[in-house]
Amino acid sequence: MNAYLDCYPCFLAQTLKTVRLATSDEHVLRNLLDEVGLALAGRSLDVPPPVISRAIHRIIANRLGVQDPYRELKQACIRQALSLVPRLKRAIEESADRLWTAAKLAIAGNVIDFGANADFDLTRDVDVILAQDLAVNHFSEFRKKLDKAGRILYLADNAGETVFDRLFIEELEKPVTYAVRQSPIINDALSEDAAASGIGEVARIISSGVATPGTVLADCSSEFLDEFRSADLIISKGQGNFEALSEEARPIFFLLKIKCDVVARHLRLNKGDIVLMSSKKERTARPG
Amino acid sequence: MNAYLDCYPCFLAQTLKTVRLATSDEHVLRNLLDEVGLALAGRSLDVPPPVISRAIHRIIANRLGVQDPYRELKQACIRQALSLVPRLKRAIEESADRLWTAAKLAIAGNVIDFGANADFDLTRDVDVILAQDLAVNHFSEFRKKLDKAGRILYLADNAGETVFDRLFIEELEKPVTYAVRQSPIINDALSEDAAASGIGEVARIISSGVATPGTVLADCSSEFLDEFRSADLIISKGQGNFEALSEEARPIFFLLKIKCDVVARHLRLNKGDIVLMSSKKERTARPG
Repeated sequence: MNAYLDCYPCFLAQTLKTVRLATSDEHVLRNLLDEVGLALAGRSLDVPPPVISRAIHRIIANRLGVQDPYRELKQACIRQALSLVPRLKRAIEESADRLWTAAKLAIAGNVIDFGANADFDLTRDVDVILAQDLAVNHFSEFRKKLDKAGRILYLADNAGETVFDRLFIEELEKPVTYAVRQSPIINDALSEDAAASGIGEVARIISSGVATPGTVLADCSSEFLDEFRSADLIISKGQGNFEALSEEARPIFFLLKIKCDVVARHLRLNKGDIVLMSSKKERTARPG
Repeated sequence: MNAYLDCYPCFLAQTLKTVRLATSDEHVLRNLLDEVGLALAGRSLDVPPPVISRAIHRIIANRLGVQDPYRELKQACIRQALSLVPRLKRAIEESADRLWTAAKLAIAGNVIDFGANADFDLTRDVDVILAQDLAVNHFSEFRKKLDKAGRILYLADNAGETVFDRLFIEELEKPVTYAVRQSPIINDALSEDAAASGIGEVARIISSGVATPGTVLADCSSEFLDEFRSADLIISKGQGNFEALSEEARPIFFLLKIKCDVVARHLRLNKGDIVLMSSKKERTARPG
């Protein structure tokens, strides 16, 4: 899915948020906002939004000399999510269908936007999501694919969400490779974040090679691409990974909350909807 | 209140929305978005946001050759609001305090964002607002000032909201001058919109002389400035007028819903709050 002009306001909002994590100097912020604005004015939109996000974050990181402005926020998110684990485990254990509940919790991990609203009510939000219907629900297809799958590739999204992923991976009961970003980009999970979330105990952690907030294949390492091409099932978390992979003909299941009007319109769904959705191309290629 | 860097994403979002009302040509939209971005990059923020909005809308109107892209939308909003009048009148008649209810309905008119969400539920929204507490409530001060006031100046905001204003003006039972924008800017009310809302039957309609979505005094006509300086009481509707007049030492009462984080932070209130608030400077100058 390529970027839309409607992404522009969001790119500027992201710039404001990111720069303010590293400095309170409004003069620096002003200059960076102008620089990002000028960079956007000349850009082609024939790329997924994460490619443009990366370009913006490079400008910011280079100017500020801060490579990972979200580092502390990510660590705090992981700690918050870890504190929920006993409750989440209980929800899985007490449920009629452990895999289904764990899948919904994995989506819950994506719903909870640690960055946007630091003082949300985790407990309440998880309950809301467990009760919320999926706007697109390909879970039975997912379960069938999972039963037959040998190798599973799991594409991480945000730090903190990683803790929810860990619980889902335990329920998959298959060998899983868990791919994170190569270097810092917004609050996306890095290798250290996956490890701190306990992913190392249930999956093999690799880097996708990218610093885009979405798995942009053109930038991925050959190690990752081997995994991507050979996996029997790919679980893709979050909007950024969806934006980057929506047109790929691989057995991908996208688990995400729709967080913006652009993706909502692209999918003809509503902002706020949650989905567990198999790849369109995969469905076209192998119906049923 | 001067503009903040946080207004930038909003200016771009406003550009997208306005241009799309006039054309579906994405190439034109792209060029205009870039042009607005470049204009923003060089701008001083030492002005209220409406001044920057006007500059943006001039760029758009000139490029598109469409002076009033919101014209049809404004007319539809007025029709929608007029259809509610019997219900609104009943609410006033059945209330224990007509002036208070009419004031809250006038705020309701500002709450209902006709532009942002065309298919909102008018009936429900009005009920919600009538039930909502004001985050800042200087109504008793307002009533006292009104009792003693001879000449009242009423500053209009959006088309459609004008219908709610009319009902409030009837309850004021004083001579009212109703000031609208001089020329088209977003969905702000013009003279024709005030007339179509029946304002002419209860007040004298004048133009403020501005094409800013907020009464920026530096741009106002001398006729308006005479009214502004001599009025015993000024009723100011909406965020744009607040942004333009927040620092003025006149007996102004601001009636608005706080629609963005920038104004919320400026007032140390929350987005979504509704207020009936006397001018800070006026309060400082004449306590009690």
